[in-house]
Amino acid sequence: MAYSLTFHIGRFDLKVNLMNDVKAIFDPKRIVLIGSSTIREKVGMASPQLFKSVAHNMHKFFHGKIRTLDVNGKAKQNNLSKMRWVPELAVIMLPPKQSVAQAEKCAEAGVQALVMITGGYKNCEREQLFKLKEKYGVRILGPNTIMGVINTSNGLNTTFERDVMPKKGNIAVISQSGGVGAYILDWACFYGVGISKFAFMGDKIDVDDVELLQYFRRDKNTKVICLYMEGVIDGRKFIEEARKTVKEKPIVALKGGITQESAQRAKSHTASIAGSDAIFDAAFKKAGIIRAENIEELMDTAIALSKQSPMRGDNVAIVSNVGGPAILAADVVVKNNLKLATLSEKTKTKIEKLYPGVDATNPIDMIADARSERYAQVLELVLEDKNVDGVLVINMLKSCFFEPNDAKVIPKIAVKFPDKPVVDVPAGGQDFELVYNVLGNTRIPLYNMPEKAAKALKALRAYGKIVQK
Amino acid sequence: MAYSLTFHIGRFDLKVNLMNDVKAIFDPKRIVLIGSSTIREKVGMASPQLFKSVAHNMHKFFHGKIRTLDVNGKAKQNNLSKMRWVPELAVIMLPPKQSVAQAEKCAEAGVQALVMITGGYKNCEREQLFKLKEKYGVRILGPNTIMGVINTSNGLNTTFERDVMPKKGNIAVISQSGGVGAYILDWACFYGVGISKFAFMGDKIDVDDVELLQYFRRDKNTKVICLYMEGVIDGRKFIEEARKTVKEKPIVALKGGITQESAQRAKSHTASIAGSDAIFDAAFKKAGIIRAENIEELMDTAIALSKQSPMRGDNVAIVSNVGGPAILAADVVVKNNLKLATLSEKTKTKIEKLYPGVDATNPIDMIADARSERYAQVLELVLEDKNVDGVLVINMLKSCFFEPNDAKVIPKIAVKFPDKPVVDVPAGGQDFELVYNVLGNTRIPLYNMPEKAAKALKALRAYGKIVQK
Repeated sequence: MAYSLTFHIGRFDLKVNLMNDVKAIFDPKRIVLIGSSTIREKVGMASPQLFKSVAHNMHKFFHGKIRTLDVNGKAKQNNLSKMRWVPELAVIMLPPKQSVAQAEKCAEAGVQALVMITGGYKNCEREQLFKLKEKYGVRILGPNTIMGVINTSNGLNTTFERDVMPKKGNIAVISQSGGVGAYILDWACFYGVGISKFAFMGDKIDVDDVELLQYFRRDKNTKVICLYMEGVIDGRKFIEEARKTVKEKPIVALKGGITQESAQRAKSHTASIAGSDAIFDAAFKKAGIIRAENIEELMDTAIALSKQSPMRGDNVAIVSNVGGPAILAADVVVKNNLKLATLSEKTKTKIEKLYPGVDATNPIDMIADARSERYAQVLELVLEDKNVDGVLVINMLKSCFFEPNDAKVIPKIAVKFPDKPVVDVPAGGQDFELVYNVLGNTRIPLYNMPEKAAKALKALRAYGKIVQK
Repeated sequence: MAYSLTFHIGRFDLKVNLMNDVKAIFDPKRIVLIGSSTIREKVGMASPQLFKSVAHNMHKFFHGKIRTLDVNGKAKQNNLSKMRWVPELAVIMLPPKQSVAQAEKCAEAGVQALVMITGGYKNCEREQLFKLKEKYGVRILGPNTIMGVINTSNGLNTTFERDVMPKKGNIAVISQSGGVGAYILDWACFYGVGISKFAFMGDKIDVDDVELLQYFRRDKNTKVICLYMEGVIDGRKFIEEARKTVKEKPIVALKGGITQESAQRAKSHTASIAGSDAIFDAAFKKAGIIRAENIEELMDTAIALSKQSPMRGDNVAIVSNVGGPAILAADVVVKNNLKLATLSEKTKTKIEKLYPGVDATNPIDMIADARSERYAQVLELVLEDKNVDGVLVINMLKSCFFEPNDAKVIPKIAVKFPDKPVVDVPAGGQDFELVYNVLGNTRIPLYNMPEKAAKALKALRAYGKIVQK
């Protein structure tokens, strides 16, 4: 995205951007919110109530300066040019025609970036908006972003979900769909997933996947990039940018509209070319993007990648206090082209000497009465084994002696082996929650089902292969 | 399972069972629990603490008569023959040798059925136990059932998870693994899934899958049978029994040990022949068993089958207030060999006339401001359409105007069309919970992800085909 001039001065190149950086979208010091307390669209997101809610969130969370412009109110601040400071970012949530008019005022006044919440734009209105970029260099997210942006570092939150703010963390989310983005937001808040930034792309007339990847690649608060996409505008550029990005941090993507029927629908939904599933699959592979099959897998994978190191080989050990769930985990490990590690004789002998009655063949069933001491010993022995590249731990509470606090030994041991990922399955419903309360804030990713944990290891192995390249 | 003699007396056949019915396992009026307040196995489930916990649950929940025998205590009731009433069922949780001795005493005294909790039996001990069946006709569940049985109708609960009792409902669970069974139990309690009975099979030296299918087929409180299995003893009998059963109620099965490596492990885990995955897949198809890929899918499928009618055709309509999640649902619908219904022109015209701005092409995006009135109207029109066989409803709260109570219209409309299944997706985390609080006790199955709901419809269609045969 290089609308720039380069001057050659002696041995130095001086590059001058004629366009503002997208940084202003995520990291502004001064914001203006432009909406209306009277205008209500028949079908659409311009509404006094939503305007009030966005204002509420902005004032509640944002660390910088905020001004609210009610274009139908009578307050003095109604006139942008009379503000004592020029905002870097304007968030606009009016019907298309009024939004475009306000956008122009902002661009003229020197606002660097616009987040356009509302949708329903005609092509000519999109073009008008795009021309502002060309004329003023202003950067535009949207229109039709619905929710706009979230940045957990500076408290920027342009969503209209009152008081909803995800936990600070290192997963960045880019969503082409407001609905899927909102789903991920709700999921992340409920399950306490740490988020760095959210970007709802909407119709992406300007800022798109490519530029967001670029931005998040450099963003020091982001460790993993999560992407929901339906279509892409410039496939080649996207792949190029993704390949650069995955060398530094992983990208997990969920693609919507993978069948002919739904692709057709996606086209009308976000006005972008959906493209066939096979093409996307090949492109993702080429780009080194890890593909998720559904929203939960997207998040589960991102959590694994954000908390654990990539896996350097295929060999998985399973350490469990129950038999059946360990077998289910083993099934998914093997089905996903990983291997059940063959433990060295030394490891096996040590375990079986320590715990007579335990058969130390992988998957290791440590039996229902295993508590923290046995977990610690066996996990450490297994991680020490050079035949093991990663470990899937299962600790059931029901039908077992295990207590939630016993789980504390897992991160304690795992941290000694930073190159070997460890994931944990406190299986079930209530019991998952109990262990989550103990380990949720540690670096151990938690899954409520062995199959999910096995898939997380698969993704960690996939990223291992990508960085090894 | 016919150890019986038939006498021909005139025109009548008089059949005399030499063996007791498995009914006594689930529906006894009088129980004895036999354990010890002093014996503790080094590795295993015989422990004073667990004995106390099982006794606690028995006394807390069971509606009939209970006696507890502490074989190491000094109390009078220590002697079974001195009891004023003969128990129908004995639950025994001692180390193998003592368990077998107690089992014999029970059989002699006329106890009809035994639930053998503890594991670690040698082959000769299993044989001793089996001989009791042959000699006395006593029926045996286990050994190594770990958790035994639950019957939500009469409060029978032989598990040692204190105060854990699932909600009364119509799903029966058969698990060969204590761990997987305990997982399902925890999951069912946490998510409020209605259960009729739980049977933990363990080593199944006597009562096995075949006989449990037979029993649950006749059980009027059971509408769906959920099965976790690792291996089967008599494949042909199992298929035969399953085929009979699915004519009356659906069976959903999860098979553990589907890869060579894990199958090997399953063999040592439950001492049964695991068999290759392909053979099981063919057998399940032949038997009309619906196969689940993981534990959550097992439960999700059972919930759908327990609450909705089978689907009579392939055509699915998606009714949503968001675009992206509807596209993801459409993807899964098509990937699973269902079809996106083509709505009749009449239906489309009616919807678009009622709600200008809504494009009534399936999947229908009713737009973010849809509330109960729009949901009711569109859902009814879609269900009336003869091109539609089932409906997947999505109602997001975040990024939308929808309120939890708006969801009440969904069962109200759905009940008018008993032959067309309706499933609902209140997407996300917190928002799922909010809608669950409103619809959880209705006949609408709820899923937190569009993909899960699409798979539920796939299962309803699969059962539709099975009953149509």
